[in-house]
Amino acid sequence: MSNPFTVLRTQEVLPGNEARRGILLTAHGAIRTPVFMPVGTQGTVKTLEPRDLRDLGAQIVLGNTYHLMLRPGAETIAEAGGLHKFMGWNGPILTDSGGFQVFSLDRLRKIQDDGVKFHSHLDGSTVFLGPERSMAVQRALGSDIAMCFDECMPWPCSREYAVASVAKTLSWAALCAEQPRAPGQLRFGIVQGGIYADLRRKCASELTAIGFDGYAIGGVSVGEPEDALLRGLEYGVGALPADRPRYLMGVGDRIQIVEAVARGVDMFDCVSPTRHARNGSAFVRTGSLQVKAGRFARDFRPVEEGCDCYCCRNFTRAYVRHLLNAREILGERLLTIHNIHAYAVFMRELRASIDAGEFDLFRERAWADLRSARPPAMAG
Amino acid sequence: MSNPFTVLRTQEVLPGNEARRGILLTAHGAIRTPVFMPVGTQGTVKTLEPRDLRDLGAQIVLGNTYHLMLRPGAETIAEAGGLHKFMGWNGPILTDSGGFQVFSLDRLRKIQDDGVKFHSHLDGSTVFLGPERSMAVQRALGSDIAMCFDECMPWPCSREYAVASVAKTLSWAALCAEQPRAPGQLRFGIVQGGIYADLRRKCASELTAIGFDGYAIGGVSVGEPEDALLRGLEYGVGALPADRPRYLMGVGDRIQIVEAVARGVDMFDCVSPTRHARNGSAFVRTGSLQVKAGRFARDFRPVEEGCDCYCCRNFTRAYVRHLLNAREILGERLLTIHNIHAYAVFMRELRASIDAGEFDLFRERAWADLRSARPPAMAG
Repeated sequence: MSNPFTVLRTQEVLPGNEARRGILLTAHGAIRTPVFMPVGTQGTVKTLEPRDLRDLGAQIVLGNTYHLMLRPGAETIAEAGGLHKFMGWNGPILTDSGGFQVFSLDRLRKIQDDGVKFHSHLDGSTVFLGPERSMAVQRALGSDIAMCFDECMPWPCSREYAVASVAKTLSWAALCAEQPRAPGQLRFGIVQGGIYADLRRKCASELTAIGFDGYAIGGVSVGEPEDALLRGLEYGVGALPADRPRYLMGVGDRIQIVEAVARGVDMFDCVSPTRHARNGSAFVRTGSLQVKAGRFARDFRPVEEGCDCYCCRNFTRAYVRHLLNAREILGERLLTIHNIHAYAVFMRELRASIDAGEFDLFRERAWADLRSARPPAMAG
Repeated sequence: MSNPFTVLRTQEVLPGNEARRGILLTAHGAIRTPVFMPVGTQGTVKTLEPRDLRDLGAQIVLGNTYHLMLRPGAETIAEAGGLHKFMGWNGPILTDSGGFQVFSLDRLRKIQDDGVKFHSHLDGSTVFLGPERSMAVQRALGSDIAMCFDECMPWPCSREYAVASVAKTLSWAALCAEQPRAPGQLRFGIVQGGIYADLRRKCASELTAIGFDGYAIGGVSVGEPEDALLRGLEYGVGALPADRPRYLMGVGDRIQIVEAVARGVDMFDCVSPTRHARNGSAFVRTGSLQVKAGRFARDFRPVEEGCDCYCCRNFTRAYVRHLLNAREILGERLLTIHNIHAYAVFMRELRASIDAGEFDLFRERAWADLRSARPPAMAG
């Protein structure tokens, strides 16, 4: 199996700093890492067009297997010529396995040895998703990177449950590895194991033995404390091959991104920049701005001074606030443009700092900028 | 008073055909007529950015005095440097007087000799709007064309009520004409009088005596039958000066536009292309397409074949339908782009037909294309 990933630069002169620059080749173009991937759950990054994503420097977007298989259905997308053609985006696409969504369904699902039976949130119909079906759907979607179908453990999770769960994730990963792929499609394994160091290591080394194009660190769930996240990450990364891309799933907090990059992670995704935008929250260098707030009613500065996104070049806080309060769709769209731009700039500067051998300074600056914006328990 | 309007071309060789091409100069640019003006109720044409409007060939947009005075308030917009700066649109803007909205409030309003007292639909507070206040707000907004504050008659309307109403509209028009204006701001009078020919003529000639930059035909209300609309229009236009622009308010049906142009009207506005888009309806040459319909689930043709708008060049009916069904904002936006484009193309072809001396052929073709799409009573 040839390796689509090349590590271009590390920070070896900085002890305890595993940050690295890389380039990942896919069937729809090259991705410069570390990279943040905007989420396009239902075949669109909410409010944005493909031309916007290009303009904003998005290198790759996510699609959600669970949502797309239920609506409009994998067959419809396959008939359209695949997800790229269907949504009009000819850059790289990563699809998740659907596992995270079905395991989040709670009372609507039943876990079996061969997958999960669940009720569709759209019409209540019974649907089955397991490793074979997930890979078949991702093949039909034609994504550039397909993820293995894994079990997402609950938080907190007993050791007994975790042992059984990792065993299941590993047997499903082996099954996923046997399935046919779309032309040029890469496949990533997912390291589970919660906060149990030995389970994380075992999972990572057994996945490596199966052999994947890249590896994700899973297990980020609502309510999981940050130290557990970083610990789980360290255990997992240590046992993964250094020459393959590493992807921390669902993480979008900028400090967590920086800390994960320092531990050798290359890829990230999160709904936070798009979801916060629709809730009226703009990400700025030092945290976030609740643009709906009354104090911005006559604030005629841009959302973020010095920002060169379309929103900040053309409109004021007062105007965007007015749009949000009047429930005008344009308000959500303008803030989405700003937030995706803010993340693109953050990641571009992060990559430049690694190139310059100055990632440690970038990390310090990020902490200085963002410490006060963090929840007290995470202010480091 | 210099005349900002020039009639460039008429169809004098075609008997009974008053269609004409013109150019109206405003402080923010020239408008080629006949023109359709997209509606930007709350300081945005819903879902669109100013750059979209430019790309789509919108020559002028509407702003709503009623909505903007309540939120964010005329003072805020004045402080921002006017509506153009506030919404980032440097092309021409026409503001209505707020009259249509406050007279539509029904039980929430009280009509007085000097204006209307009403309850804000936002917070229930008591607000007063009359000719002086309306002109003051439009001055603060800094629109290129301000409309007189008139009484919008109910439909149907007794002759007795109509006589008193026209008298009120005329006295208010005289008051409006005395108010100061924003620099370069044009002011249009509004002809009322319902279906009463003599009242329409009297209103038109008295407004002409006061002297305005242009004249609107008012009185289009929900439930008014089409023949009443066209009759009222004919009565009004006949008594208006030929060298001034004529604006038929609130009309957006393409056949009604064509018939009004044939009767000498130059300007139109309507929420229909934008509102229908958000309801999933696409305007096509022969009528409209309900894109949400199940039969489009696997229809991989563009919304309108041969259309060169961004939506039709890049996406399929199946994709737009998926977005609408998944309640993705992008679906509403893509159809808005298509509909505004469709109207821009329709008006461009209409203007070209007048230039070519072939408006009669354009009118025939429009009827042939759209007859079957009309409500039975209007199929002509």
